[in-house]
Amino acid sequence: MTEPALALLDFDAAGRAVGHHLADVTQPHLSVLDLAATRGDGVFETISLANGHLQALEPHLARFAHSAAMLDLPAPDPEAWRAAIRAVAALVVDADGAPVDEGFVKIVMSRGVEGGSGSLDPRALVPTGWVLGAVAPDHGAARRDGIRIVLLDRGYRHDIAQTAPWLLTGAKTLSYAINRGVFREAARRGADDALFVSTDGFLLEGAVSNLVLRRGQTLRTPRTDLGILAGTTQVDMFAWAESVGYATEYALLTPQDLEEADAVWLVSSGRHAAPVRAIDGRERPVDAELTARVNAALHARTH
Amino acid sequence: MTEPALALLDFDAAGRAVGHHLADVTQPHLSVLDLAATRGDGVFETISLANGHLQALEPHLARFAHSAAMLDLPAPDPEAWRAAIRAVAALVVDADGAPVDEGFVKIVMSRGVEGGSGSLDPRALVPTGWVLGAVAPDHGAARRDGIRIVLLDRGYRHDIAQTAPWLLTGAKTLSYAINRGVFREAARRGADDALFVSTDGFLLEGAVSNLVLRRGQTLRTPRTDLGILAGTTQVDMFAWAESVGYATEYALLTPQDLEEADAVWLVSSGRHAAPVRAIDGRERPVDAELTARVNAALHARTH
Repeated sequence: MTEPALALLDFDAAGRAVGHHLADVTQPHLSVLDLAATRGDGVFETISLANGHLQALEPHLARFAHSAAMLDLPAPDPEAWRAAIRAVAALVVDADGAPVDEGFVKIVMSRGVEGGSGSLDPRALVPTGWVLGAVAPDHGAARRDGIRIVLLDRGYRHDIAQTAPWLLTGAKTLSYAINRGVFREAARRGADDALFVSTDGFLLEGAVSNLVLRRGQTLRTPRTDLGILAGTTQVDMFAWAESVGYATEYALLTPQDLEEADAVWLVSSGRHAAPVRAIDGRERPVDAELTARVNAALHARTH
Repeated sequence: MTEPALALLDFDAAGRAVGHHLADVTQPHLSVLDLAATRGDGVFETISLANGHLQALEPHLARFAHSAAMLDLPAPDPEAWRAAIRAVAALVVDADGAPVDEGFVKIVMSRGVEGGSGSLDPRALVPTGWVLGAVAPDHGAARRDGIRIVLLDRGYRHDIAQTAPWLLTGAKTLSYAINRGVFREAARRGADDALFVSTDGFLLEGAVSNLVLRRGQTLRTPRTDLGILAGTTQVDMFAWAESVGYATEYALLTPQDLEEADAVWLVSSGRHAAPVRAIDGRERPVDAELTARVNAALHARTH
């Protein structure tokens, strides 16, 4: 394939997805009044596609629905979205028409097209939704050689999701300007990625990934009540790790835990487990063997 | 007019705006790969239009450029944007072709259309830009009767802009899901709008407005180094107030200052000065006479 595959969701007047149709990604399909484009007012998920298999599709759909609920968006109809996702996934193929080794399908739903009046009234808005599928970028170097990260203050306390839910922490929204900004800040510091830390000193998440530490035979990740995104890939990494004898734990972690860890990864749907080889400029060992096993297991997922 | 007026900016391959063309707002013009729609990765301004006059155009263009710089976007060419803005403003007319009493022009620039690969690499991206003009919604009730507000924790300390610039506080970005979320939270609490407070107890700004307090003959607003947007309309309100004998001040303000204020406003380009008539459910007096004078002065601005 040369261009990504695209399907647009069809909604009825009540905001319910009733179907989809394929569309040409090289053509414009969004209004300049769409709240995705003017306010980042919507939600998304990125699902990895391994040899034609949509990985962790149901957990992604569940998180999509959770994010939509946090934003008071209409509940996405899973059946309609699944059908569009499968239609697009089937088009992510190589020149011979065979499924690609690694692709991705991205699903997006915005609050819809605003009137020209500047009104913020969400009533009567019908969502906009689309599904995009494409060949994945090559993550080989990051998985093999590791990534350099820097710790960046997230600005929030660790309990922000409980004390200020209107800040939408834990929802995967289209308002990702900060997430992209931290990649630029990381690059300015000679790193590839960032790890957010709460103002009161707890490790949170990467800009678009979850943190996993190994110490001995135990894998640990930050608790999901810290205003972070609950990781679909991290969950699968833990399930595999338990199946081969590791203990796993959701914990309150600090930079001291990073220092004491035998191995550190940032984990996400697209890149899978990227081993961390430097933190704030200090090199650290990469667990190449376990990384390779984890990524082979993630790539081989059948759910 | 029935539909908003629209111009799309034309950029050269180096990302420089070189002109614009008018377009039909009822048609789609944005790609689903535009980073405005997928990441809220861009900046905007809303300029009020009073009887054909673009109010505070140059301060808005300066803030637009400031926001762009904070996001490492190409510097918007003021000449190209001015030309597009004027072309659109000229189309915001009534049925007789006369300028409307109150309109607005919104300008938006995103980082551009991403490749289908999921790459975050910003190199070689050409921005997307557009200018939308329309009749303003009717703000009469808010200006006359006042608005009910609630105080909401912003989650950040007052010095966040200095300690964590990668969080982009003070930039007017397209990532406004939180700003819209706080309107919903305000509505759940029976209010019209919200006023953000820092975690360490300082008054910040409204969701899309600046705070101004009057005590005696002095108007005060929060300092602009508190990770808030520097208000173009608040600046003009202060200039007018000084011209008629008020003192003005940028200050660190607390909820105690709200309690002690003789009058409170939320100030923005569209709604101008909306008097606050209740805070967290407690009614408070509205300074109807000064509000009317302020709004008359803001509407009559000639710069």
